[in-house]
Amino acid sequence: MPNFSSRGLNMPESPIRKLVPYARKAKEKGLKVYRLNIGQPDIKSPQAAINAVKNIDMDIFAYAPSEGNFDYRETLKEYYHTLGFTDLTVDNFIVTNGGSEALSFTLSCLCDDGDEIIVPEPFYANYYGFAEALGIKIVPVVSTIDTGFALPEIEKFEELITPRTKAILLTNPSNPTGYLYSYEELRKLTNIIIKNDIFLITDEVYREYVYDGLIHHSVLEFPELKENTIVVDSESKRYSLCGIRCGFLVTRNKKFIELALKFAQARLSPVLIGQIIANAAHYEPDSYIENVRKEYTERRDLLVKLLNEIPGVICPKPKGAFYCTVELPVDDAEDFCLWLLKDFEYENGTVMLAPAQGFYSNQELGKKQVRMAYVINKEDIIQSIKILKEGIEVYNSLT
Amino acid sequence: MPNFSSRGLNMPESPIRKLVPYARKAKEKGLKVYRLNIGQPDIKSPQAAINAVKNIDMDIFAYAPSEGNFDYRETLKEYYHTLGFTDLTVDNFIVTNGGSEALSFTLSCLCDDGDEIIVPEPFYANYYGFAEALGIKIVPVVSTIDTGFALPEIEKFEELITPRTKAILLTNPSNPTGYLYSYEELRKLTNIIIKNDIFLITDEVYREYVYDGLIHHSVLEFPELKENTIVVDSESKRYSLCGIRCGFLVTRNKKFIELALKFAQARLSPVLIGQIIANAAHYEPDSYIENVRKEYTERRDLLVKLLNEIPGVICPKPKGAFYCTVELPVDDAEDFCLWLLKDFEYENGTVMLAPAQGFYSNQELGKKQVRMAYVINKEDIIQSIKILKEGIEVYNSLT
Repeated sequence: MPNFSSRGLNMPESPIRKLVPYARKAKEKGLKVYRLNIGQPDIKSPQAAINAVKNIDMDIFAYAPSEGNFDYRETLKEYYHTLGFTDLTVDNFIVTNGGSEALSFTLSCLCDDGDEIIVPEPFYANYYGFAEALGIKIVPVVSTIDTGFALPEIEKFEELITPRTKAILLTNPSNPTGYLYSYEELRKLTNIIIKNDIFLITDEVYREYVYDGLIHHSVLEFPELKENTIVVDSESKRYSLCGIRCGFLVTRNKKFIELALKFAQARLSPVLIGQIIANAAHYEPDSYIENVRKEYTERRDLLVKLLNEIPGVICPKPKGAFYCTVELPVDDAEDFCLWLLKDFEYENGTVMLAPAQGFYSNQELGKKQVRMAYVINKEDIIQSIKILKEGIEVYNSLT
Repeated sequence: MPNFSSRGLNMPESPIRKLVPYARKAKEKGLKVYRLNIGQPDIKSPQAAINAVKNIDMDIFAYAPSEGNFDYRETLKEYYHTLGFTDLTVDNFIVTNGGSEALSFTLSCLCDDGDEIIVPEPFYANYYGFAEALGIKIVPVVSTIDTGFALPEIEKFEELITPRTKAILLTNPSNPTGYLYSYEELRKLTNIIIKNDIFLITDEVYREYVYDGLIHHSVLEFPELKENTIVVDSESKRYSLCGIRCGFLVTRNKKFIELALKFAQARLSPVLIGQIIANAAHYEPDSYIENVRKEYTERRDLLVKLLNEIPGVICPKPKGAFYCTVELPVDDAEDFCLWLLKDFEYENGTVMLAPAQGFYSNQELGKKQVRMAYVINKEDIIQSIKILKEGIEVYNSLT
């Protein structure tokens, strides 16, 4: 058999891949599997988006422009104007096949094989995949559960910068920790960015979902970063539209737009129908987002309270997104997650969690941690935590 | 401003990018612009596909499985069974966001930075883009207009193989030449593939559109290539569904599927709605493809006849796809294409063609050539060639 590439062989697996067959078997046994493992919300997509599909009246599903439909980019511009960035025009946006492609284009435009990007860990596991695919080295800067995963001291970043460092990458609010970066934290980062003349990439796809009256600060608020920031955005989480694969890039850096457009042209076209749906979603009344935010707030409050009531469990209160990274009183969270699906049941159900090791480059750090996504309803959250509590007790009595 | 990557800076531009603003201006002047430059068919998508959209009844547009929906892969399996490959199961298929992503995953799995793939030129211009994005070197083997772009002698391939050669990449039938590889040509290639234990990647997205009773031969017909072939396929051209972004990979190599799946998981999900539409399209009666093939045959016959009637024009008769690569009696086809849009009009119209230089690595070879796609109706083909003929005369009288 011919040889495969190192990038193919070294490509990381999804943190939950090993669990999937056991979840299927548990379901086949008749168990209810409570899925807290993935960021697929149970929230209904906006009615305007659902209607848009029904109203599609085309007889040729033709290529969309590589940079995205003009009217959708107009809508995105208007949306960013409501966020306060009134200088942006349609030319500051490129539509992509999900936030994933937006990040992939960004890394391609900024980094060559062997270049480095600094990322606070734990971080979204797929960043590893995109970096590995392009031969880019992720240099982690550790944030810890004791500080609720706050941004590490600025000096820690400075220490890691080398001539190969091309960017710092943040997810704000964070997947997997739910941490929301403060204005002050971002301001400190801008200094390093400017001083070293590197890029700041931020994934702001959860921007609408911040809680307790806190305000999300975008890196676009810093005028001195005009040429240095690229924002990755997506409609997936905002409007519960994960399957339409509609994301986009936002930047004031014209040269970046020019380069990213070449990558966009190579793949010809972003999704046609996804753009129509996403465009419509932006015309849903604001109450949609407000209601979803209220629902997530209640779920978060419930989940965090119940988790912290379990002896030995540590769960900092997330400020945004719909994830929390939780420390469990077990020696090996991955083994525990597998065991829950394979060998455990309680009141006819079990829970599926994402082992947090996949979110760390130093896997020891995440060994006792899991990520939970509060994308299931409150009743199911109560039952899952009941199962989890029982599971921890039984598991620890076995070992 | 911070530095960009070499891969970003060196990423090739689309061959028609320079022409686009002039085409827009010509339209604004009130001219009818006959677009022979791009493979966007004017053919109606299948009614079954159009109906499928109207019947979508979901209230959450959720992620699809990374490898694609099970029912769509079942349909693909059945389709490949009708092609004669009855050993294939759903596990031989991975659904991708267009054929573009299928090729991108394939190159990622096979090649590291600095690796080489051999491609008969002229070839689909975006292959350059995908290769550049991944640091892969395209090594061209020249096919010429005198032989109607037949596969070059096998010895030419052998001479180009180095320890960095990972694959030979074919488009069959070819974009931009319409050449259809014979069974004998493919058989000769298999020998090199086996001898050197490399991969044969074939892009077979135009497989249904071969003419004159000729038969399309897939590389899947060669059992000895079981571990060595990857087929890139897409619904875009088959069913005039370019905008739904639904393509897929087919291979018998299990290890390849395993690696490609990791890339698929990193981007989470292929298009949800595109799969629903494509799935439905496969249930359209066969008469759809037969009618489209008939239409393309008539257009091809008309276009080739009219072109060869123009003094100095050479147009080999394409056997498949819906393109032809044509030699024009001009010194610089790119300049001529630009001039047609910028400075020429005839009977209130002009034509937009793709300069063929972008399809060659050695741009001198394509300097007098253009690619035309017969994706416009016969009446418009007649008028475009009238304009082109007049254009050539006027242009050559100027210079």
